[in-house]
Amino acid sequence: MLRHDERNNDQIRIMNLTTNVNKYAEGSLYIEMGDTKVLCTATVDEKVPPFLKGQGKGWVTAEYSMLPRATHSRNQREANRGKLTGRTMEIQRLIGRALRSVVNLQALGERTITLDCDVIQADGGTRTTSITGAFVALCIAVNKISEQHKLPVFPITDYLASVSVGVVGGQTLLDLNYEEDSKAKVDMNLVMTGNGQFVELQGTGEESPFSRQELDEMLQLGEQGIKEIITRQKDILGPISQLIGSSSSRKGV
Amino acid sequence: MLRHDERNNDQIRIMNLTTNVNKYAEGSLYIEMGDTKVLCTATVDEKVPPFLKGQGKGWVTAEYSMLPRATHSRNQREANRGKLTGRTMEIQRLIGRALRSVVNLQALGERTITLDCDVIQADGGTRTTSITGAFVALCIAVNKISEQHKLPVFPITDYLASVSVGVVGGQTLLDLNYEEDSKAKVDMNLVMTGNGQFVELQGTGEESPFSRQELDEMLQLGEQGIKEIITRQKDILGPISQLIGSSSSRKGV
Amino acid sequence: MLRHDERNNDQIRIMNLTTNVNKYAEGSLYIEMGDTKVLCTATVDEKVPPFLKGQGKGWVTAEYSMLPRATHSRNQREANRGKLTGRTMEIQRLIGRALRSVVNLQALGERTITLDCDVIQADGGTRTTSITGAFVALCIAVNKISEQHKLPVFPITDYLASVSVGVVGGQTLLDLNYEEDSKAKVDMNLVMTGNGQFVELQGTGEESPFSRQELDEMLQLGEQGIKEIITRQKDILGPISQLIGSSSSRKGV
Amino acid sequence: MLRHDERNNDQIRIMNLTTNVNKYAEGSLYIEMGDTKVLCTATVDEKVPPFLKGQGKGWVTAEYSMLPRATHSRNQREANRGKLTGRTMEIQRLIGRALRSVVNLQALGERTITLDCDVIQADGGTRTTSITGAFVALCIAVNKISEQHKLPVFPITDYLASVSVGVVGGQTLLDLNYEEDSKAKVDMNLVMTGNGQFVELQGTGEESPFSRQELDEMLQLGEQGIKEIITRQKDILGPISQLIGSSSSRKGV
Amino acid sequence: MLRHDERNNDQIRIMNLTTNVNKYAEGSLYIEMGDTKVLCTATVDEKVPPFLKGQGKGWVTAEYSMLPRATHSRNQREANRGKLTGRTMEIQRLIGRALRSVVNLQALGERTITLDCDVIQADGGTRTTSITGAFVALCIAVNKISEQHKLPVFPITDYLASVSVGVVGGQTLLDLNYEEDSKAKVDMNLVMTGNGQFVELQGTGEESPFSRQELDEMLQLGEQGIKEIITRQKDILGPISQLIGSSSSRKGV
Amino acid sequence: MLRHDERNNDQIRIMNLTTNVNKYAEGSLYIEMGDTKVLCTATVDEKVPPFLKGQGKGWVTAEYSMLPRATHSRNQREANRGKLTGRTMEIQRLIGRALRSVVNLQALGERTITLDCDVIQADGGTRTTSITGAFVALCIAVNKISEQHKLPVFPITDYLASVSVGVVGGQTLLDLNYEEDSKAKVDMNLVMTGNGQFVELQGTGEESPFSRQELDEMLQLGEQGIKEIITRQKDILGPISQLIGSSSSRKGV
Repeated sequence: MLRHDERNNDQIRIMNLTTNVNKYAEGSLYIEMGDTKVLCTATVDEKVPPFLKGQGKGWVTAEYSMLPRATHSRNQREANRGKLTGRTMEIQRLIGRALRSVVNLQALGERTITLDCDVIQADGGTRTTSITGAFVALCIAVNKISEQHKLPVFPITDYLASVSVGVVGGQTLLDLNYEEDSKAKVDMNLVMTGNGQFVELQGTGEESPFSRQELDEMLQLGEQGIKEIITRQKDILGPISQLIGSSSSRKGV
Repeated sequence: MLRHDERNNDQIRIMNLTTNVNKYAEGSLYIEMGDTKVLCTATVDEKVPPFLKGQGKGWVTAEYSMLPRATHSRNQREANRGKLTGRTMEIQRLIGRALRSVVNLQALGERTITLDCDVIQADGGTRTTSITGAFVALCIAVNKISEQHKLPVFPITDYLASVSVGVVGGQTLLDLNYEEDSKAKVDMNLVMTGNGQFVELQGTGEESPFSRQELDEMLQLGEQGIKEIITRQKDILGPISQLIGSSSSRKGV
Repeated sequence: MLRHDERNNDQIRIMNLTTNVNKYAEGSLYIEMGDTKVLCTATVDEKVPPFLKGQGKGWVTAEYSMLPRATHSRNQREANRGKLTGRTMEIQRLIGRALRSVVNLQALGERTITLDCDVIQADGGTRTTSITGAFVALCIAVNKISEQHKLPVFPITDYLASVSVGVVGGQTLLDLNYEEDSKAKVDMNLVMTGNGQFVELQGTGEESPFSRQELDEMLQLGEQGIKEIITRQKDILGPISQLIGSSSSRKGV
Repeated sequence: MLRHDERNNDQIRIMNLTTNVNKYAEGSLYIEMGDTKVLCTATVDEKVPPFLKGQGKGWVTAEYSMLPRATHSRNQREANRGKLTGRTMEIQRLIGRALRSVVNLQALGERTITLDCDVIQADGGTRTTSITGAFVALCIAVNKISEQHKLPVFPITDYLASVSVGVVGGQTLLDLNYEEDSKAKVDMNLVMTGNGQFVELQGTGEESPFSRQELDEMLQLGEQGIKEIITRQKDILGPISQLIGSSSSRKGV
Repeated sequence: MLRHDERNNDQIRIMNLTTNVNKYAEGSLYIEMGDTKVLCTATVDEKVPPFLKGQGKGWVTAEYSMLPRATHSRNQREANRGKLTGRTMEIQRLIGRALRSVVNLQALGERTITLDCDVIQADGGTRTTSITGAFVALCIAVNKISEQHKLPVFPITDYLASVSVGVVGGQTLLDLNYEEDSKAKVDMNLVMTGNGQFVELQGTGEESPFSRQELDEMLQLGEQGIKEIITRQKDILGPISQLIGSSSSRKGV
Repeated sequence: MLRHDERNNDQIRIMNLTTNVNKYAEGSLYIEMGDTKVLCTATVDEKVPPFLKGQGKGWVTAEYSMLPRATHSRNQREANRGKLTGRTMEIQRLIGRALRSVVNLQALGERTITLDCDVIQADGGTRTTSITGAFVALCIAVNKISEQHKLPVFPITDYLASVSVGVVGGQTLLDLNYEEDSKAKVDMNLVMTGNGQFVELQGTGEESPFSRQELDEMLQLGEQGIKEIITRQKDILGPISQLIGSSSSRKGV
């Protein structure tokens, strides 16, 4: 039985990637996963936050925001509320943490890269789409740094992508859109590396707890989806894709 | 002598308009004036702010924001600062005021239209581009209301567009980009209607006061630019353009 | 090889539970997991948040905070910063979501229960300890409501507890204290029900991605720890423990 | 036909200026334009904001506020709202910008002058009155600096004053009070220098767009009003008035 | 030995009171105690705060603020800091509490009077001067209400004034100015009624604890100063002074 | 006639003190005065606030907070409100000021001690209990500093304790609990030193002004209560109590 948008259960949405969409940013990507559309820009700053000063290490951080009318009904701007919602904070902490897991901060040197993920339109999976897109913008920016400063080691140690999986109406589905997500009894976000390891795993069964078997099925479907997404990242990165993980030295070493 | 982007002094930048770029908003427009790019969405809410309740009148308001990397160097998000800058407040008050000047709020009925102007990339003239773009998104949304609720009078009373003019190196220039704007001794923003009347006029000579003659030259150039922009608005609005100002009754009457 | 506090890898910390420590709250528990000490109080309010009004359903929510000197060095109070940190928001959203997964909100009726989890002293695992403790305070408060209002169905559908697991120095460890947590390459928080299902699963490999095998080992150790913790919850709840899940009807049905 | 307060259309309100009303401030003026009353104080600080450090230039900035009961009904204090309104920000940005247009910041040296404009009572034209008054307080403070530090050039390059003009009931009026302002179809604020040049020009036709002819009439009336006001500034400044614009060198040179 | 401003130890400063200085407020007073100058306005609002609704009682509250340059060096505006300082909150709570002690809130009916105390210039004793002045503004506003609504009982039950006393260089002094206050080992603020009873007593010996004998001396001097101040309040209130405490019924009865 | 908790009018509540309840803080005390329970921790920081830098003096400050369910009905967290209430600010300013009155800041050296007073349960007198408890935590922390840095003079110059007194139903009562406090016509907080001098005296007669005789009775009762409390502080401090005030040199000398 096909899903309402005619996908199979194990099929990701139509994925479009456009690089260098911003004339100022050191790296940028416009990513569409179905009707979810995110603009990711990478900004390089030649200094680090206070807690890292003088350690010869760099930093990668992220910010996430939705335009007010990215969603079905308009949301109040967080700038007007005067503070970020818990949801936004949770998501941008997740994006930053996930990206850092594949960056050799030592090799990056004392500089900060900020990934801005601005959701232009939301139809489910905005946080996973942001991670997938921010990774590409990050690679482009890191490549620029690497060339300018002739870094001896390329600081990206592996690919990184993210996707959601869930259980909806007894079916395990890959890459949920908003309609599916709102009916899911379980929703899980996976972040994985190019060599198939887990970086983040966040499963929530608020509607209903889930069994170990359901967990295993979701993990398997997610793993498959991430492989597919990483293939697309490689295509768009072109020659840069050769550099990722090229150094034999492990992250942080 | 041509300007650094090869325009004549009285030439506006290349202008691209794309309607219906957002699948949820009641009206939307993506506008490019050269490298300045703004996403305008119109949201219709079937109620009015407290100060207007029970008066049978509607309201039009605007919000303005720049993505952090819309500019040459990254700006801190206002949501993180916890409050809007004075510049943002000034601009969004201007946009709202300008739009209301061509809306028959009585004819609109007790509903609010919020125009979100999100600057995707900034290269000078973001406030004038926002007004020009928001007007189109507003018309599309008002048309939707008009059709759904069979409004007896179309609530838009006239066209509205905005452009900047300035004096740079002794030359009076139309539609300044960032490089020109930063060298201007005088900078003026004009908002005018389709029948050539003024809605807003804001001239600033912080670098150097300006004479009545310079003012007159700027006004003439601006008037000409606005005519050209309104022609483009008419094209993109298509059949809706017939309805604007169609009612013989004056605004607010 | 024993851990630095002489526990085995699969051993939880010494766990002390004291009920009714607050003379005003409808339910309260003081919980110690080793040197992590949390005061949990449950407050019953005979109304629901605006988004639930008139639906005949209740609500359960949580707030989390650390006293400034709960940790090794003093933290600034969030009340002085003027806003909650992202970490706090993330944790209190998690606690509320987890608790709601075992509450039949329909059976609770139109009332809100707020669980305050105030960390008196922190030595790792404050969020898991908060969930484990808040569940007991919640049961006591719900029992009071159930008796006062003669609810036909006891609104708690199952037990709920939480524990952390991690990989430290190649070993998979249960219930990490601060010292272990700060050296862990992977850290995972599990929330599970009395019948062994998952409610939340949050694994993070910022230091280093982790394999499927490591994940499986952590899941197994966590499941065992949670069983032990639930046994302790049953003891302290005494007669109330009979009521939990007593209704054959499923949550939310 | 006389206006309701018996003025002619081209007549400014009764204007009272009292200098040195504050025993601590380096310059101060209490200005009354009819029933609009503003206390202006100038504070000299021997340092500049971070963005100007080490450039040998000074800075002039302004803050504007209304006492809660300056108006017909009481306004909430902005300190209680926790933030400035957009209106306040817009006005204080305008005052600062206008004043800087007649200050040779190089000649001022690395110091900041802050003009506080506190509206004691409001009856229309508080922003124009603030500019007119702040200019006098600024001159007194600059004169003090000039004498103390034996500045080679007097840093004020020209006079500066401001007035409002508007179209009310078909008449073009000078220096509108609150009652007139609230009935105006067009409202324009002018800031001009002693030699008759424009510094700021802000015209708004929210109620109704205005024609080029109306604009020209307003400009002419405003110019005349400003001349009159500057005469009064000269009187109150006494010997200091000799120094203004005394240096042949242009502003900023 | 005379004090540096030639007063005796038991002498209050020169006191000037001007009523009706604001054309909008229901009551207003400009009070000068030496160089301390405070503008007090009373605003009547025909409703009460939520916690008093439907009880047939009124409310009296106060707000206190200093203009930025009221003091020797300029203070940042609290509106810019985004919140009130602890000092401001403490003072405005004190003023409100003190005023309420002599108001029969029942007799006032369901209305709120807000006293705004804005310090134009500060030279010590701004809180005591505010209480003394706010009381007069309050009486004028209450008299207006009493006449308009023909209240059967005049709601002010007694006079109220405040003064500071302190120990400076071994001398007990009345009504300290800033210079004395900054050298005082003990500083005490007294609020007393017309019949010589205490409403507030706040003594602080941060610099040095003080003895019972010093306390007694300060109390005696303060009592004498307050009598003198109340005589001045009676003079300025004129006929209204007859009404105060005229009802035999006690406050709150 | 006994009070409702069977105390005599001049009897303090049952007082329990437990030291070293926090494994991280330099000093800590858990204090119970009847059902009022406060956790006091002292944190030592080897630097001073900016306004004291380079003067060779230390600083002592305090923060006060109530857990949300410390009271009969739950209070919103101040961290959620985004700012401290006036009451909290007033109390923590009082605690800090009181403690500093018995500390030789010169002898303390350039370090800051922060006393956190977190009210676990509130039944009246939380500010006085906080002062009494914070003093003990402070002494323990200062002793630790004194030993580590071999300070030549012990920086605590005298004992310090606090208690409330009030007039309830015509009776003068010592150490009011919540029920008594809410019925008191007068409420006074005393802070006194070991040698019987006053540090703070705050009496409030909002409900009803009070006479000199009532004041004298309250002072006498309070003095007696404080003596008793100081005896208990000496017991719990043990050997440290010998050091307090041991230096003949006066505070601040």
